[in-house]
Amino acid sequence: MSESITNKQVRLAARPVGLPKQSDWKFTSATVPDLKEGEVLIKSLYLSLDPAMRGWMNEGRSYIRPVAIDEVMRAGGIGKVVASRSPRFAVGDHVAGTLGVQEYWSGPADDREVALHKIDPAAVPLPKYLNALGMPGMTAYFGLLEIGMPRAGETVVVSGAAGAVGQTVGQVAKHKGCRVVGIAGGKEKCDFVVNELGFDACIDYKNESVREGLKKHCPKGVDIYFDNVGGEILDDVLAKLAMKARIVICGAISQYNNTTPVRGPANYMSLLVNRARMEGMVVFDYADRYHVAVAEMSQWMKEGSFRSREDIVQGLEKFPEALLMLFEGKNFGKLVLQVAAE
Amino acid sequence: MSESITNKQVRLAARPVGLPKQSDWKFTSATVPDLKEGEVLIKSLYLSLDPAMRGWMNEGRSYIRPVAIDEVMRAGGIGKVVASRSPRFAVGDHVAGTLGVQEYWSGPADDREVALHKIDPAAVPLPKYLNALGMPGMTAYFGLLEIGMPRAGETVVVSGAAGAVGQTVGQVAKHKGCRVVGIAGGKEKCDFVVNELGFDACIDYKNESVREGLKKHCPKGVDIYFDNVGGEILDDVLAKLAMKARIVICGAISQYNNTTPVRGPANYMSLLVNRARMEGMVVFDYADRYHVAVAEMSQWMKEGSFRSREDIVQGLEKFPEALLMLFEGKNFGKLVLQVAAE
Repeated sequence: MSESITNKQVRLAARPVGLPKQSDWKFTSATVPDLKEGEVLIKSLYLSLDPAMRGWMNEGRSYIRPVAIDEVMRAGGIGKVVASRSPRFAVGDHVAGTLGVQEYWSGPADDREVALHKIDPAAVPLPKYLNALGMPGMTAYFGLLEIGMPRAGETVVVSGAAGAVGQTVGQVAKHKGCRVVGIAGGKEKCDFVVNELGFDACIDYKNESVREGLKKHCPKGVDIYFDNVGGEILDDVLAKLAMKARIVICGAISQYNNTTPVRGPANYMSLLVNRARMEGMVVFDYADRYHVAVAEMSQWMKEGSFRSREDIVQGLEKFPEALLMLFEGKNFGKLVLQVAAE
Repeated sequence: MSESITNKQVRLAARPVGLPKQSDWKFTSATVPDLKEGEVLIKSLYLSLDPAMRGWMNEGRSYIRPVAIDEVMRAGGIGKVVASRSPRFAVGDHVAGTLGVQEYWSGPADDREVALHKIDPAAVPLPKYLNALGMPGMTAYFGLLEIGMPRAGETVVVSGAAGAVGQTVGQVAKHKGCRVVGIAGGKEKCDFVVNELGFDACIDYKNESVREGLKKHCPKGVDIYFDNVGGEILDDVLAKLAMKARIVICGAISQYNNTTPVRGPANYMSLLVNRARMEGMVVFDYADRYHVAVAEMSQWMKEGSFRSREDIVQGLEKFPEALLMLFEGKNFGKLVLQVAAE
């Protein structure tokens, strides 16, 4: 390339205590380097904002290495190839991969951590590739089917029901013949998952007792709980388990910004009484079968029996405040940061 | 029967708050009624004292109905048939069943809750039928094998290692080719499980850091944790799980007498990081296969590759104080109350 391109980037400046503050981030600019053989340059269009990001900002052993201080913040994204010295990608291709919170990503086309792969912009709107057809959708699909193991007629409860993972959990469960009860914050979100996504019921945890809601909507108890939130709601569901219930531990957004110790589930002995199971999952373990999930959910989308909703915030500079929306429950649907026009 | 027999009984007088007090019990006497057709009269010899008893004293839904106020306290026991109007049992037979905390049990020979069955007094000493060949042994055997699913070479950790369940968990795991690390209170108990039972190591939680002990003795992490205690030790083990670990939730003796809320496992998100599972079990679910466990463990006993230790307290009147030994960790081996001479 002859002209130099400036790449605005968001880097982790400090490990946050509690909710990430503006000062935990650093905005920098760099010039995009010339491509070497085998490399590509991607212009980011949409970035995925996820609760898991909060975990990546902490030190310590986890399922993925922490983002280092001064490193560009990790984020999944959708972009367009603007230069290529790799036979795998041509200029104009749309791709998904771990692009980071920045305007451009460049590097080896086969970088394993980034996992670039082509997507079809004609099949569904691009942001859906960060939602049902992206990481949250894969998490929901494999977490529910492989760990939850739903059978037709069982009752599935999912927290964060209007969120990226919750939307898909509930709809996959409906497709498998389950009764589905969501838990979400506010009437608008509850109406959405019932009326738009076809859940059987939704408990508005901000305005009603979750315990009472579970009693009302899960008369035979909870066979599967897909937990995105942890905290008090996990305890409420533990108290309503059916025999041989399965709890899928996917996240614990209520606990991610704690400055006090995590609240462990005090009702965990319900696992004994009900011969029930609580099991954790990490989506990357299913990477070799993502295509199966994408194919099935794409088909449902075409048939009109599967929907998803995104909440799109504009502008890379909005990243710090947009991320906080997740922890305040302010996003309505999968939260996406648009960093450039398509 | 012509002469009347007096039956001393221990009844639940009040639901305890915290540790059961002497005043939570009531000692009564009753005359043994004449037997009806199909009934038997059993003279109790040994009664089983178990941590689970504390749970039976509470109100509320659990895996078994609570003992009612004024009801004879539930207990498993070993006895001798002293009168019979049932073809199933002859005078002189030795039996095991849920005899209750009393000197005599009488009723229908086929009472399902009592589950009377003959045992062979010549095969092993009678108290062993309340230990490895009784409920604790069945709990250990099926909990470890069916929920823990050990594979040779894996590391198994068991708390309450010198207790009734722990002894058997560790020895079954050794027979299956696992590395076994116990957790017990005091040097004497630790020496016992290592030197007498053949565990690979034992952490003395009263005198050393469990975290440090796990680090030292489980260099590859914990594949299976058989939890009898809950509380802080459960959190310590959660922090040391290996990938795909299984936690068998069998009990939580550290929490049974709480007057404050149960301490939930704050480190439960380790289940996610390690794709691990925590699952509850209740021994009664395996009743139709007890004979398999009894056969296998009896064989090991004959071969000299399986041992068990009982701690025998004398006298029905000692029941209230003997029960407390469990919660103070004062028993050394399976706690048994002898109520009559063999």
